[in-house]
Amino acid sequence: MVRPVKVGIVGLGPRAEVLLAAFLRMDEMEVIAVCDLHEEPIRKTLGIFERYGKPAPKTFTNYHEMLKLEELEGVFIPTSWNSHLAIAADCMEAGKYAAIEVGGASSIEELWQLVHAYERTKTPVMMLENACYCRDELMVLNMVRKGLFGELVYCEGGYEHNLRNNLARMENTGEERAYHNRFRNGELYPTHELGPLAKILRINRGNRFLSLTSSATKSVSIPAYRRELTAKGEPYPDVPFNQGDVITTIIKCAGGENITLTHSVSMPRPYSRNGRVQGTKGIWLEDVKGIYIEGMSRDETLIDPAGNPYDRHFWDPVESFYEKYDHPVWKTDKDKLVGGHGGLDSLAIRAFLHAVRNRENPPIDVYDVAAWMAVTCLSEQSIAMGSMPVAFPDFTNGKWIRREPTPRNRWSLDEVCEECFED
Amino acid sequence: MVRPVKVGIVGLGPRAEVLLAAFLRMDEMEVIAVCDLHEEPIRKTLGIFERYGKPAPKTFTNYHEMLKLEELEGVFIPTSWNSHLAIAADCMEAGKYAAIEVGGASSIEELWQLVHAYERTKTPVMMLENACYCRDELMVLNMVRKGLFGELVYCEGGYEHNLRNNLARMENTGEERAYHNRFRNGELYPTHELGPLAKILRINRGNRFLSLTSSATKSVSIPAYRRELTAKGEPYPDVPFNQGDVITTIIKCAGGENITLTHSVSMPRPYSRNGRVQGTKGIWLEDVKGIYIEGMSRDETLIDPAGNPYDRHFWDPVESFYEKYDHPVWKTDKDKLVGGHGGLDSLAIRAFLHAVRNRENPPIDVYDVAAWMAVTCLSEQSIAMGSMPVAFPDFTNGKWIRREPTPRNRWSLDEVCEECFED
Repeated sequence: MVRPVKVGIVGLGPRAEVLLAAFLRMDEMEVIAVCDLHEEPIRKTLGIFERYGKPAPKTFTNYHEMLKLEELEGVFIPTSWNSHLAIAADCMEAGKYAAIEVGGASSIEELWQLVHAYERTKTPVMMLENACYCRDELMVLNMVRKGLFGELVYCEGGYEHNLRNNLARMENTGEERAYHNRFRNGELYPTHELGPLAKILRINRGNRFLSLTSSATKSVSIPAYRRELTAKGEPYPDVPFNQGDVITTIIKCAGGENITLTHSVSMPRPYSRNGRVQGTKGIWLEDVKGIYIEGMSRDETLIDPAGNPYDRHFWDPVESFYEKYDHPVWKTDKDKLVGGHGGLDSLAIRAFLHAVRNRENPPIDVYDVAAWMAVTCLSEQSIAMGSMPVAFPDFTNGKWIRREPTPRNRWSLDEVCEECFED
Repeated sequence: MVRPVKVGIVGLGPRAEVLLAAFLRMDEMEVIAVCDLHEEPIRKTLGIFERYGKPAPKTFTNYHEMLKLEELEGVFIPTSWNSHLAIAADCMEAGKYAAIEVGGASSIEELWQLVHAYERTKTPVMMLENACYCRDELMVLNMVRKGLFGELVYCEGGYEHNLRNNLARMENTGEERAYHNRFRNGELYPTHELGPLAKILRINRGNRFLSLTSSATKSVSIPAYRRELTAKGEPYPDVPFNQGDVITTIIKCAGGENITLTHSVSMPRPYSRNGRVQGTKGIWLEDVKGIYIEGMSRDETLIDPAGNPYDRHFWDPVESFYEKYDHPVWKTDKDKLVGGHGGLDSLAIRAFLHAVRNRENPPIDVYDVAAWMAVTCLSEQSIAMGSMPVAFPDFTNGKWIRREPTPRNRWSLDEVCEECFED
């Protein structure tokens, strides 16, 4: 049994509730403190602890007071997109490991502040990007590191999720998404798809994002949906809605690879993260649930009407690679999944707890957070300037060229550690 | 029986051979003249006519001589990417309908020359873009015009075709593709995917392409493949190869829609044209062979770990829409397909012959040709300038705003004419 890590939570909104569904089932941690500006969510949270038969945590309405608890080792910060980075920096200044939720930045400056907080305190921040620990993304990372895809050239990802019901009604969807989509226009939610791709492409460890262009379609899906609701007798105010229905962003990397991202949360369609990882030897394409590896997957030679031969190539189902190439973390932890997003939340949480317990750098660190979240404000800038290319700052100040992959344990998303089964 | 149209062919290379596999099986036409600069392909072509038991055509080595044949009504021009536009303009000046093959332009100026040739002579040119007559593309056009997709917002297309064998060996693949890919870097082959999308989006008839950005990955797949061949004892010269392995181009339309195109001909993978057509009510996605239409396709409501409901949406197989929504042309002609590309060539050819026979504007006309082919040189410019946005000229000089869809017959790709069964 590992030593339970003592943690606190700042922000007791809907996302905290989902996190607690994992926290309160995990022996690896104790939630000793919770904080919210308001009494009502604190009361609700204490009720959840009671239902799980867990001892009540200390409660705070000012997180600066909570950070004075000496025994506190790490803090989860499921607050709003506009507040979690500044709170994380304060946690780091207090010597507490910080765990933030996903999202994008509003300015490059708030990311520099986070980087400076880390460099001043050497206390890490991690983004709980659960998609990095999805089975297929982990397996593709493993296959890429084993060389099966050859030299990487091109990736795609997306967040295509029909959230129209929430967006049209301007309800709080748990991350104030509706408000950001109403007032902004850009790649507002890049990390679910970009996180795994950035790790696969060794961003900040021998590679980096150089520049991007971003393009937005018109915004007509939410107004159309509101008109439908109104016609059904559910009138909604026809307030402006800025976010384009589909945002396409192309990121150029120092290694010569491009990444295309698609953001779309207002259109009716099945969910997809649009995963694609492609190299000189193979390709994974999430939407076809397929992988093609040259020399391993099926090819056929056919004859055209003029008598000339041509080749056809066929997808293998992703599942056919699981037995041989599942990532070691998936094998060790697939029966321990608890909580939200099919239990994937618990993998990102365990990775964070491991880093806190061992005072290590987490697998998604401050430079990853800064690079991934910068996509959002840079995308807004590019769109505002007619899709002009805009440059990424180098948040590592040149260290990316020779930065070693960290941490060296089984949670690493940089290297695949077959023998690292410590916890 | 319709009156056979009298046609000639300029350029007797590999593409002409594939075209002849359709021509010589079609009663709607007579090939009365063929032309090539060289005697050898003329001899080979005469042999093909003999094998089909067809009367030998007149032969020419100078197409200007061929164009003097008064009975000649239309000319097919399967010549190189660098020559077919100028030859088409000469055909139009001689009063002969011109049919060009697919490809992209090297300059905006060569497209203006084509447009001016049409406006001076009123003799049309058509691009034989067979992909516009593919079953699924035709059906999606039909469904869009019936309103099933709502207001269109976003489209994607691609030409992802593993042609590495030809490209690495610098062989002539029938359209000097290898040479263009060696020296250029851009969206060199846009029309297979863009043609159907442009028609669905009413480009040049109430809509137009406004601008694009284009991004190229590094070019490493061909050099890697050449090293493999060399290692196997088939040495190939390591000459420079400019074309990026994956080119991504985003076109903005006047109607507020975006189109993302992917060009990739050097990477090992299954073939795809990446089709996607998306509106406020539905989406077609080629790679999943699926369509989702709101209110028609399956939805389910599930509960997350915090007890909140969320929706899942499911694809319907494309085939499930065939019976009800197949395009009228597919129904009338699906049993008459002959020749290349699964017989699709013959649909584009019949559309051209219909226009010639009736002295009508063809369904893909000079303004379509100019807009579609302009993507290639504009993409090169954008890539050369670090993915800067570049503007499309308006080849219609403003006429696109109120241009009527033409022709009004069953071959139209602008409107779907249920009752137009004339031939």
